[in-house]
Amino acid sequence: MPLQKIAETQAPIHDLIGRRWSPRAFLNLPVETDKLLSLFEAARWAASSNNEQPWAFIVATHDDPQNYEGMLSVLVDFNRGWANKAPVLMLALAHTQFEKDGRPNRHAYYDLGQATANLSLQATALGLTTHQMAGFNPQAARERFAVPEGWEPVSVIALGYPGDPDSLTETLRQREIARRERKPLEKFVFEGAWGHPAPIAGSV
Amino acid sequence: MPLQKIAETQAPIHDLIGRRWSPRAFLNLPVETDKLLSLFEAARWAASSNNEQPWAFIVATHDDPQNYEGMLSVLVDFNRGWANKAPVLMLALAHTQFEKDGRPNRHAYYDLGQATANLSLQATALGLTTHQMAGFNPQAARERFAVPEGWEPVSVIALGYPGDPDSLTETLRQREIARRERKPLEKFVFEGAWGHPAPIAGSV
Repeated sequence: MPLQKIAETQAPIHDLIGRRWSPRAFLNLPVETDKLLSLFEAARWAASSNNEQPWAFIVATHDDPQNYEGMLSVLVDFNRGWANKAPVLMLALAHTQFEKDGRPNRHAYYDLGQATANLSLQATALGLTTHQMAGFNPQAARERFAVPEGWEPVSVIALGYPGDPDSLTETLRQREIARRERKPLEKFVFEGAWGHPAPIAGSV
Repeated sequence: MPLQKIAETQAPIHDLIGRRWSPRAFLNLPVETDKLLSLFEAARWAASSNNEQPWAFIVATHDDPQNYEGMLSVLVDFNRGWANKAPVLMLALAHTQFEKDGRPNRHAYYDLGQATANLSLQATALGLTTHQMAGFNPQAARERFAVPEGWEPVSVIALGYPGDPDSLTETLRQREIARRERKPLEKFVFEGAWGHPAPIAGSV
């Protein structure tokens, strides 16, 4: 059975946000085209600085072995060991220069993160799940997918229907079923100056 | 009346994602403490590389003039001109070094973007709205709020209840009511290699 790991919150949050997490177990089941489209559409409507939309995605599905193997090949070994069960892998890229004049875009990674957050929540809404990976080789990805200068490969996202933790190795299964943890609010919500917890953050 | 500007989508997306946009008109109405807490709680549960959670927020509310004026002072003139009506302003910061060993965290901005996307969608869910600004002076923010080395001020977020576009200057009112625009999917969803539109992106 797929796990439900709902966030243990200090204040109520929207169900979609509470239910999103990053499993490693996926069902051996393709993702329907219309659902995949909805994910990218959700990414499309993210906010971005100057509405620059400095994001792109390269998709590889399991039924396209050449591209899928190419995507797997850029992952670090640890991630390749479980992500090879995900029916879809996506490389997420940020445009670090503004289109109109080539100036550096300080918010490229930030805006890409907003787009992938949207994508991940849309996945949750459709019964799908994502696991974003920093553990891949950006230079290998650049070469494999002919990524032009000015664009940076930032993450690889595994996507699919959530699977059974028992399908994982014992080490990964333990990580899969572990409690979700986050820093308390008073560690990162400040008021007035750095490091001064906002009174509201201490009120929970 | 506040505007509804629902995304005109090429594929269906979750209501929360479709309704989120970035207005400049706010009601002169404070944001309740419990709602503010839910926003930060939503940010808290974002995904991050190594679960590093490389984000922080410094909050200034309109009823705390000293801090609020301090936050306004770091904005560029254009943004100060409208954001001074928002009941809450927040500085969003990224930790660009890993806590445990000080190595650079390549995904700090990206992960902060995911946290602020969560925050913005939670705002939408609560009838609130956010407008993120890149237009501020990061160095001035660093000095004003005593931000330590290793942390980067990345954006200032205006938050409040959506207001009437007619409360804006005519120039801003025109921008407020303009149609929302995004690039079509085939411009940023690729397959196989850079610049090759994924067949699914052309299917809409």
